[in-house]
Amino acid sequence: MEKIIGLIDAPFTPFYANGEVNYEPIPAYARMLQKNGLKGVFINGSSGEGYMLTEEERMKLAEAWIAAAPEGFKVIVHVGSCCVKSSRALAEHAAAAGAWGIGAMAPPFPKIGRVEELVKYCEEIAAGAPELPFYFYHIPAFNGAFLPMVELLKAVDGRIPNFAGIKYTFESLYEYNQCRLYKDGKFDMLHGQDETILPCLAMGGAQGGIGGTTNYNGVNLVGIIDAWKAGDLERARELQNFSQEVINVICNYRGNIVGGKRIMKLIGLDLGPNRTPFRNLTDEEEAAMKAELEAIRFFERCNRF
Amino acid sequence: MEKIIGLIDAPFTPFYANGEVNYEPIPAYARMLQKNGLKGVFINGSSGEGYMLTEEERMKLAEAWIAAAPEGFKVIVHVGSCCVKSSRALAEHAAAAGAWGIGAMAPPFPKIGRVEELVKYCEEIAAGAPELPFYFYHIPAFNGAFLPMVELLKAVDGRIPNFAGIKYTFESLYEYNQCRLYKDGKFDMLHGQDETILPCLAMGGAQGGIGGTTNYNGVNLVGIIDAWKAGDLERARELQNFSQEVINVICNYRGNIVGGKRIMKLIGLDLGPNRTPFRNLTDEEEAAMKAELEAIRFFERCNRF
Amino acid sequence: MEKIIGLIDAPFTPFYANGEVNYEPIPAYARMLQKNGLKGVFINGSSGEGYMLTEEERMKLAEAWIAAAPEGFKVIVHVGSCCVKSSRALAEHAAAAGAWGIGAMAPPFPKIGRVEELVKYCEEIAAGAPELPFYFYHIPAFNGAFLPMVELLKAVDGRIPNFAGIKYTFESLYEYNQCRLYKDGKFDMLHGQDETILPCLAMGGAQGGIGGTTNYNGVNLVGIIDAWKAGDLERARELQNFSQEVINVICNYRGNIVGGKRIMKLIGLDLGPNRTPFRNLTDEEEAAMKAELEAIRFFERCNRF
Amino acid sequence: MEKIIGLIDAPFTPFYANGEVNYEPIPAYARMLQKNGLKGVFINGSSGEGYMLTEEERMKLAEAWIAAAPEGFKVIVHVGSCCVKSSRALAEHAAAAGAWGIGAMAPPFPKIGRVEELVKYCEEIAAGAPELPFYFYHIPAFNGAFLPMVELLKAVDGRIPNFAGIKYTFESLYEYNQCRLYKDGKFDMLHGQDETILPCLAMGGAQGGIGGTTNYNGVNLVGIIDAWKAGDLERARELQNFSQEVINVICNYRGNIVGGKRIMKLIGLDLGPNRTPFRNLTDEEEAAMKAELEAIRFFERCNRF
Repeated sequence: MEKIIGLIDAPFTPFYANGEVNYEPIPAYARMLQKNGLKGVFINGSSGEGYMLTEEERMKLAEAWIAAAPEGFKVIVHVGSCCVKSSRALAEHAAAAGAWGIGAMAPPFPKIGRVEELVKYCEEIAAGAPELPFYFYHIPAFNGAFLPMVELLKAVDGRIPNFAGIKYTFESLYEYNQCRLYKDGKFDMLHGQDETILPCLAMGGAQGGIGGTTNYNGVNLVGIIDAWKAGDLERARELQNFSQEVINVICNYRGNIVGGKRIMKLIGLDLGPNRTPFRNLTDEEEAAMKAELEAIRFFERCNRF
Repeated sequence: MEKIIGLIDAPFTPFYANGEVNYEPIPAYARMLQKNGLKGVFINGSSGEGYMLTEEERMKLAEAWIAAAPEGFKVIVHVGSCCVKSSRALAEHAAAAGAWGIGAMAPPFPKIGRVEELVKYCEEIAAGAPELPFYFYHIPAFNGAFLPMVELLKAVDGRIPNFAGIKYTFESLYEYNQCRLYKDGKFDMLHGQDETILPCLAMGGAQGGIGGTTNYNGVNLVGIIDAWKAGDLERARELQNFSQEVINVICNYRGNIVGGKRIMKLIGLDLGPNRTPFRNLTDEEEAAMKAELEAIRFFERCNRF
Repeated sequence: MEKIIGLIDAPFTPFYANGEVNYEPIPAYARMLQKNGLKGVFINGSSGEGYMLTEEERMKLAEAWIAAAPEGFKVIVHVGSCCVKSSRALAEHAAAAGAWGIGAMAPPFPKIGRVEELVKYCEEIAAGAPELPFYFYHIPAFNGAFLPMVELLKAVDGRIPNFAGIKYTFESLYEYNQCRLYKDGKFDMLHGQDETILPCLAMGGAQGGIGGTTNYNGVNLVGIIDAWKAGDLERARELQNFSQEVINVICNYRGNIVGGKRIMKLIGLDLGPNRTPFRNLTDEEEAAMKAELEAIRFFERCNRF
Repeated sequence: MEKIIGLIDAPFTPFYANGEVNYEPIPAYARMLQKNGLKGVFINGSSGEGYMLTEEERMKLAEAWIAAAPEGFKVIVHVGSCCVKSSRALAEHAAAAGAWGIGAMAPPFPKIGRVEELVKYCEEIAAGAPELPFYFYHIPAFNGAFLPMVELLKAVDGRIPNFAGIKYTFESLYEYNQCRLYKDGKFDMLHGQDETILPCLAMGGAQGGIGGTTNYNGVNLVGIIDAWKAGDLERARELQNFSQEVINVICNYRGNIVGGKRIMKLIGLDLGPNRTPFRNLTDEEEAAMKAELEAIRFFERCNRF
């Protein structure tokens, strides 16, 4: 199976001020991402508030991103849902609509307590798009599914034919590496934490990854990989350190989904508010965040349109 | 606002063997519940696998239960969802369809960390059915929303006009009682753990409640309240102890949603399987559970059709 | 084995302003507790900052309390420690010094993950005082040992001859009751949450208990049991509700160990500061707490010297 | 302040079969560690069952290790305890006995919930050995102190004069790096997870570290740093991957404290059992672990005497 090389972006979902999805910015959004070195998008995930969208909105977003995707720009559709029947339908839709791949995180309810439950869940969904690669999105801080990923790989191996790999959004580079080494790299281990791309590269990983701060800082995150490959360790470190500084800022503003989404407005693409129960930044908070970003000269180095 | 007196049942959702919802058993199910002393149903909640149903299925179930409800039998529709827009639509539908009330638990994703987020979430949903009482369903073990309920009451008081009370499914009888005493009982505190009806009655609570094991053991749980009101403490204790023994058994079989649903088949109403990721009981497990229930003479005392 | 009838107090440990243990107040402290209806003390537990004391201090405190105990006033010595060798030595000392019984909670480090580990831990300690009743002190919120207590009873039954029962400081009245019913009440289940004495009595439990707020509110907590036994449910409810109000106040002041200890000063027995890492109340906080207690007329009803 | 260069070992504490501490193996143990490239020891920590030792045993172990330490071999004494008074005494003793430095983890009880509590705790202990460097040992999985370490550094900076740095035993290389970058590397950030030395080196960290599997696999862990410094990335990866394989094995045998300690016997230094509540390996388990280690050719590459 083809492995992803480079960084995929997890885009935010644009909303109008009234809370309805706004599909208009997507073509410009996609072009900007590609221009800054991103290789595709992983839509309707956590950054995209996928779980807070209706099934219909999720389908229309998939269609919009697929239509807007430049040549060679991958669109992976997150189809996870608490309702596996709905996920299955979203998987079928993604395949019919022309997505490059699909993915799903473990449902937050009911909480998954055993690998076999997770395998069954993935199996039913993956079967909805048997021609597409399926990625499990491991983000246990969001859904409580603190399960051993090597065990998951063993369990799906030979059982789910289109299981491609894992978007690994967890701190354990040890477990990540063990997954990467499974059967000499049989599965595609997408690195999923923008703050540790460089250390992961050193271990041999992070050939491919999915980022959240890539929306506005992708050019620097892509730069880490380029610098590493060029043997320029100092530059890779500088870029990784800078990227951590950016993350330091968003951590003060409710993280990437809320604070990061607002940064998009500051760099020229207003994506509107977040859905309830997220608390949107006030104008004062936005101004304070902007000042913190200016202090690290973010706007001189960030993604460009 | 009217307070609920007596026990409401949280029904299971019937499925065909192929995993599709089966609406046929609902009239018989409703009659059985009423016959055994239940005052209504709280549908599409955790026992009903509401989060694992599509929006359309949830609406059709609401219609089916409302159509089947005998005179005076309350139908409360759980409309909670990770997507507040979907919840709002379900609330509007419930009102239009003739539900007695609505309810919602905190979304499991994104995890609610502050009372103000929860209030906003409830507010948007409750506004979809302003003529109906809205109950917050507090079950933090399922969604991680371990928030102080007295603070919730203070925050909604004067802000959400149709906020009726809380279905309290948590162990702290102390907090339950503090909620109950808030403004001399302004809100309706529905007791939500079948294992502690008697102790809650002693404190002055549990005038109304919502049960999960009431589906098959309601006659005994209703009996606890009747015995207490009649001053027969010994009988109340015997019934509470017996009800705990029933719960001891289902704890050995993956709890009420899985094990309890299978008990329905054993007492004469086959409701089919659970949806993935729940693991259904094997035939061996079913037989073992049946034997454990026989050992406590459950089938001689349980709900009757 | 004798069962404890009535309430035992978990006293605070008096300190001088310089942080050294002050043994002087203990005789007056013991007399006050007995005068207000308490049947004994459980010393060096969590209220007593037992884990923050040296082994020598713990022994001297045991000696001081035993020496000060009025006729018929039970002294139970908590001997739990991360070091089982130290616990064993404390158990031997308690027996030699004339304690009525001993107890131990699960060590917070290493975290106990299995019942068999806990049984081994209790067994080694209990063997140090084979003539004394040993109580396991279940307070999982403090040590992470969220283990099934019925399983513990099964495991110690026939193995630890002097295992007397459990001081149950956890919210599950269901599990408490199941332990109480084990072999028709073979073990002594001491109720350990002052906020739920009345509901526990209704279930048939709480014949004996160990309190933390009994230090200053024991007269009312003892009153709950007396009122219940006298058939005066209304009075029992009023006393339980009042006791919850007192707990509401201490919850605003870092709980019983910190806030509750300072209440002792307010009722006439200054016990000094808490040990690091506890943060002691400031004078402003003390004044605010006092005002909250006055608002509920606490000082008109509390324990008297 | 001097920074530690290279790897320090966290030794196991030798016990006789009867459970008493055995001081005899320590000189040979120290020589072996130095021979395999270790620069010192961090004694009485989690690997050393420090919390399960009496105060007297901890002091005697400190004396024994200091006496046995070869020229230039650092002895850092972990003095943490739930009793800060005891920790202070251990700190004073370590200084008097000639230790190179001291350290303490957050107490597991009472659970530390705020940085200011932790600072106060560290301050009182560090003041007991003002001439020695004090290291905070961050291992929140063991004590629940999931606190932000950059905030700790800010809080101790200018307040605790001998605060040297942090033994960082947690997965977040992002936070580790932020601590490392604080004031251009003001504090000594000792890397504390043997499974991720290579990725940490890439980021610029791990110049110094403290290991647990260094007891038997130190030669290969030291080799990672050497290979990295020599620019041999492939060799560094091979050694890191091998070291992860070793960790894979001990994870099957209750981790380093239990399984790792038994490996010492297999390589020639029997250190006896673990203290209760640890469950010691059975002979069957030991044999199975040995077989797993043979399968990865561990005994051909491990530490040598």
